[in-house]
Amino acid sequence: MAILQIGAGGVGWVVAHKAAQNNDVLGDITIASRTVGKCEKIIESIQKKNNLKDSTKKLEARAVNADDVDSLVALIKEVQPDLVINAGPPWVNMSIMEACYQAKVSYLDTSVAVDLCSEGQQVPQAYDWQWGYREKFEEAGITGILGAGFDPGVVSVFAAYAVKHLFDEIDTIDVMDVNAGDHGKKFATNFDPETNMLEIQGDSFYWENGEWKQVPCHSRMLEFEFPNCGSHKVYSMAHDEVRSMQEFIPAKRIEFWMGFGDRYLNYFNVMRDIGLLSPDPLTLHDGTVVQPLHVLKALLPDPTSLAPGYTGLTCIGTWVQGKKDGKERSVFIYNNADHEVAYEDVEHQAISYTTGVPAITAALQFFRGKWADKGVFNMEQLDPDPFLETMPSIGLDWHVQELEPGQPVIHKLK
Amino acid sequence: MAILQIGAGGVGWVVAHKAAQNNDVLGDITIASRTVGKCEKIIESIQKKNNLKDSTKKLEARAVNADDVDSLVALIKEVQPDLVINAGPPWVNMSIMEACYQAKVSYLDTSVAVDLCSEGQQVPQAYDWQWGYREKFEEAGITGILGAGFDPGVVSVFAAYAVKHLFDEIDTIDVMDVNAGDHGKKFATNFDPETNMLEIQGDSFYWENGEWKQVPCHSRMLEFEFPNCGSHKVYSMAHDEVRSMQEFIPAKRIEFWMGFGDRYLNYFNVMRDIGLLSPDPLTLHDGTVVQPLHVLKALLPDPTSLAPGYTGLTCIGTWVQGKKDGKERSVFIYNNADHEVAYEDVEHQAISYTTGVPAITAALQFFRGKWADKGVFNMEQLDPDPFLETMPSIGLDWHVQELEPGQPVIHKLK
Repeated sequence: MAILQIGAGGVGWVVAHKAAQNNDVLGDITIASRTVGKCEKIIESIQKKNNLKDSTKKLEARAVNADDVDSLVALIKEVQPDLVINAGPPWVNMSIMEACYQAKVSYLDTSVAVDLCSEGQQVPQAYDWQWGYREKFEEAGITGILGAGFDPGVVSVFAAYAVKHLFDEIDTIDVMDVNAGDHGKKFATNFDPETNMLEIQGDSFYWENGEWKQVPCHSRMLEFEFPNCGSHKVYSMAHDEVRSMQEFIPAKRIEFWMGFGDRYLNYFNVMRDIGLLSPDPLTLHDGTVVQPLHVLKALLPDPTSLAPGYTGLTCIGTWVQGKKDGKERSVFIYNNADHEVAYEDVEHQAISYTTGVPAITAALQFFRGKWADKGVFNMEQLDPDPFLETMPSIGLDWHVQELEPGQPVIHKLK
Repeated sequence: MAILQIGAGGVGWVVAHKAAQNNDVLGDITIASRTVGKCEKIIESIQKKNNLKDSTKKLEARAVNADDVDSLVALIKEVQPDLVINAGPPWVNMSIMEACYQAKVSYLDTSVAVDLCSEGQQVPQAYDWQWGYREKFEEAGITGILGAGFDPGVVSVFAAYAVKHLFDEIDTIDVMDVNAGDHGKKFATNFDPETNMLEIQGDSFYWENGEWKQVPCHSRMLEFEFPNCGSHKVYSMAHDEVRSMQEFIPAKRIEFWMGFGDRYLNYFNVMRDIGLLSPDPLTLHDGTVVQPLHVLKALLPDPTSLAPGYTGLTCIGTWVQGKKDGKERSVFIYNNADHEVAYEDVEHQAISYTTGVPAITAALQFFRGKWADKGVFNMEQLDPDPFLETMPSIGLDWHVQELEPGQPVIHKLK
C-alpha cells in the first residue's frame, strides 16, 4: 500500500502526521510540494514526535509543480500510490484530478476547486468542474472523494448521519463554525491570508425554499451558543458544502455560518475600506506594481507560526432541524478541537488539525474498502457510520446535543 | 520684483494662487517643481480663476530637482528672484537654504527640515540644522523666514501677539488644531499620506517645567470646545512650533494638540497594528520589495482630489494662559477656515489654504521691508502686528476669545 500526498502547507502538515500514525494501513508515504524543503520539514517533525507507526514503511519528500499535469502523472506513475491525497490549495484540484484520471489512481481532496468569489465559480456552480469527472472516474475504475476536511467534510457526514438515524424529515441545515482560540497576535489569519481574505469578502449564498439567495458578506448574522465555547456571533458565508448538501439532502434552508469577533471584523472592514484586500494590480509612485492582497500576506504572521502557544477550542458542527416520529426535533452534532492538544499531537494548530484528521479518516475508509466505489463522491453520499466510528481514534471526537426546536433569529445587517 | 516658488503640491497650489493675487507687490512669479506639468496645472487654475492681479507680470513654470543644490543655484541666478518661497516637502529645506545662501537670495518656508520621528531630528533638535544658517544668512545679507504656514507659523504669531499685547506673564501655551470638515471618503489624509502617517505615529514632545517630556503618540488627550466647530478630542503631538516657542517665549508648559476622530484613530490603529505604516522594506512572496507606507500612499485618495465637495470648517489657534495686571487670564486666538470658501477662491481645500495664505502674508511683510532683517528668523521673533493686520485681506481672519482661566484636564491613555 502507498499514498502520495501533494501539498505541504498547514493542512499537509497534519495530513502527513496523521498518515504516518496510520501507515500500518496506508503504507508508504510520499509528500510532494513545489518546495521540497517544506516536505522535509514535515518529515523532521514526524520523526521528532515519533509519529511514524510502522518504521519499515517509507516516508519520503519529493518536489513537484502541482499545476503541471504531465509532471504529476510522471510522479504518480513512479510512486505508484493507491490514493493521491490533495492537501494543496484549492486551485490545484483540477490538475491533480486530471493527473489521477490519466494515471488511473484514486483521488481525495479537502475543499472545492474554485474560489467562490469569482463569477461562474460561486456556490451554485461550485462543483461543476469536479463533478464533470464523475463518469471519467467510473470508467477509469477509480474513486474520487471530494471535500474531505471538516467543513466541508465532517459537517456533511454529520448531516448524512442525521438523515440516516435522527430524522424522518429535514427542515433546515446550518453549518456552524467558530474558532474560540487565542493566538495572542493583534491580527492574523489561521490559514493563507490571500485565500482567507478572498473567501471572507465574497457574497454569501444560501439555499432557501427551492432557490439560491445571494447576499453581501456579513449581512446576515445570528448568535449561537457553542458547546464549551460560549455564545458567538456568526455570519452567513459562501462555503463548499452548502452546494453539495443542496444536491444530496432535501431541505428548506441550507446555510453556512462562521464566527467573527467584533475586533476581527473591525480589522477586516478597515483593510477592505482602504483597498488592501484587493487582488487587482496597484501601481506605486515609483512604478512598482503589486497586488494589495499580496502585501497584506507579507505583512501578516505566517499562519504556521501561530501554532506554538495557541490556546482554546474550536467548535464546528451541523445544526439540523426537522421532524422525527411526527415531532419537531433540533440537534447540533459537533466537535470541539483544542489548539494545545493539536500542537502536542502534531506540532500544529487546531484549524489545520480539524481539516487533516478527517482527510486521513476518509482515506482509511477508502483503504478498508468501505468508501471505495468507482466514481466521484461528496461526503454526504457515503455511509457516515464507519467514518464516525473511526474519527475519534484519529484525533477528533463528536457529540450530539439535543436543542429546543425553533428557527434562529437572523439579523439582517447593512 | 520677483519670486521663485519651489514645490507644486497642495501648499504650492495655494501659495501660487495667493502670490498671483498679490503680484502687484511680489512681481514676476516662477513656479518650479520636479514635474513641470504640476506647475503648469496650477498656472491653468490661476488663469481659470482669473487670479493674476497684474497681468503685465510674468507667471512661468520650470522644472527643477530640489534635492540638487547646483541646479537650484543655477535656477535662482537665472530667475533672479527677491525671495525664494519653499513650498516643497520638508526634506528639501536644507538644499534650498544652501542654494539661497550660495546665490545670496532670501528664503521662506512653511515647516521644519526634519521628520520629527527620527532619532536626532525630534522636537528638541528640530531646528538645529536650519538655525545653523543664522550667521551665514546674516553675513550674506539675506533674510530667512522659517515655518511661515499656519501651524507652524500663524500660531506663533498669535503667541507673540499675546506676549506683546495681552499678558504680563505666560504660564502655558497650547496650540490647538482641528479639521471639522468632511471630505466624504471613508479614509483619506489631507496632505501627503507618507508624511502624514510618519508624523502621526511619532512620539510627542512637550515642554514642561524647564525640560522636554517625551510620550507615545495619542497617549495624552484633552477635550476642547473649538469656536464654531464644537467639542473635539485632541491629542498631544510632536510639532515644529513647540521647539521654536520654547526657544523664544518663556512658559511653564508648551504643547501641540491635534484633533482626531475616533473613526480616524481606528483606521490608524488597525493600519499600524498590521504594519502598513512602516517605512521599512517588506519582501513579498514573489521577491518584490516595497515599503508598506508607499503601498498605503498608492491606495489612499490623492489629497488634492479631496478639495471639490469638501465641506465644513477648520479651527486652528493658540490657547495662552498666564497673568495680566496681576490677574489670571486665558485667551484663545484662532482662525476658522472654510473648505468651500477656500475651493471657491483657489480651487483647493482649507488644509493647504491655511498653510499657503500665511506664507504669502509673510512674503508681503518681507517685500514691504517690515520682516526683512538679515539672518534667520522664526515667526515668534518678528513683530506680529503688521502680519496680523495683513492676513485677513489675504484670506484668513482671526479672533481673540476670552476663556475662563484654568488648566485643561489631560487624560493619560494607554
